[in-house]
Amino acid sequence: MTLPTVFDDPSDTHEEVMAATYRALCTHGYANLTIQRIADEFPKSKSLLYHHYDGKDDLLLEFLEFILEGFESNVPAEEYVDARAHLEALLDHVLPPEADLEEKRRDFASAIVELRAQATHDRAYHDHFTRSSRFFHDRVVAIVETGIEEGVFRPVDPERVATVLMTVFDGTRFRRSTTDVAGTIPDLRAELETYLEACVYAEREDAA
Amino acid sequence: MTLPTVFDDPSDTHEEVMAATYRALCTHGYANLTIQRIADEFPKSKSLLYHHYDGKDDLLLEFLEFILEGFESNVPAEEYVDARAHLEALLDHVLPPEADLEEKRRDFASAIVELRAQATHDRAYHDHFTRSSRFFHDRVVAIVETGIEEGVFRPVDPERVATVLMTVFDGTRFRRSTTDVAGTIPDLRAELETYLEACVYAEREDAA
Repeated sequence: MTLPTVFDDPSDTHEEVMAATYRALCTHGYANLTIQRIADEFPKSKSLLYHHYDGKDDLLLEFLEFILEGFESNVPAEEYVDARAHLEALLDHVLPPEADLEEKRRDFASAIVELRAQATHDRAYHDHFTRSSRFFHDRVVAIVETGIEEGVFRPVDPERVATVLMTVFDGTRFRRSTTDVAGTIPDLRAELETYLEACVYAEREDAA
Repeated sequence: MTLPTVFDDPSDTHEEVMAATYRALCTHGYANLTIQRIADEFPKSKSLLYHHYDGKDDLLLEFLEFILEGFESNVPAEEYVDARAHLEALLDHVLPPEADLEEKRRDFASAIVELRAQATHDRAYHDHFTRSSRFFHDRVVAIVETGIEEGVFRPVDPERVATVLMTVFDGTRFRRSTTDVAGTIPDLRAELETYLEACVYAEREDAA
């Protein structure tokens, strides 16, 4: 998931609050986050934050919705040769080798894992992550459907393929943030390619 | 993962502490857990708990190690016809249909997701989950190696296959505890079978 560039250049007070929340999350994670620590990253009136939000979860849920709305309203800018190139680009983005993962992106990904774990006992987080999972799932389904139409994918069941890929994406994020599994990413990518070649990608004509 | 039956019939004080921790975790999850709530489940002297453990995390880490040691010292009792039957039994256990998942097991699985999320910022949890992930990974590797020896699996790379399966297992636990994805488990199982048939299982002779 690419972060909204708005965090680098907020254009109004609300975007400044969101950018401050992003910086504080990257620095402190969720467990050690307080409204005060978000306020420390906020250049304007601190009291505005305290009066506007009913605790850190209230602010964090708005932050999660803000990010998701950014994804929902953005039509992906890149153009791909075909759905196979699109899916490979997605795999490169979601499953980068550990060495290519910037520290800030890793810190933010860990904070999102912490936020998502709140969904085990907090209904508002649970509803948010169900909605965002559904959104990204539907994006993967659309890529698979396009690939079938283009003839670069076999006539697979797009829901099934998207479910496996989303489970692998979520599993990788969870494992990467909670265990030392960095060295296993190349194995994961290689076996995913084996699966995609055998079950999803159409056989290339030039290979015949 | 099957829970140690010791929780139903603890044989000494330490096992009673572990059983009390298990019950308190199932009831309250991690975020709402306190030493007091564990003590409430403990039939003996409450002060013993307070004196022995330096906070809930100290007790929970011992609890996690206790469970892992149970797995490490137990040779699986079941006998399987072959490695394929063993792997299918594992899939049935780790990826059961939602309707087959007992409430207590679901509550405990959610608590484990919460505990594992602590690994994002707590080194002791991180070390524990790295060790337990490695243990279960090696168990899957052993099943795949056996399958290759038996001729029921193709000559695949056991590390790669185990990495994909472990990522799917972790992803499913994370998704199931944090989102409404129950309906997608049949899709996941069906596509996993497609992958295993195409890439891992040897073609059956009676199908020739």
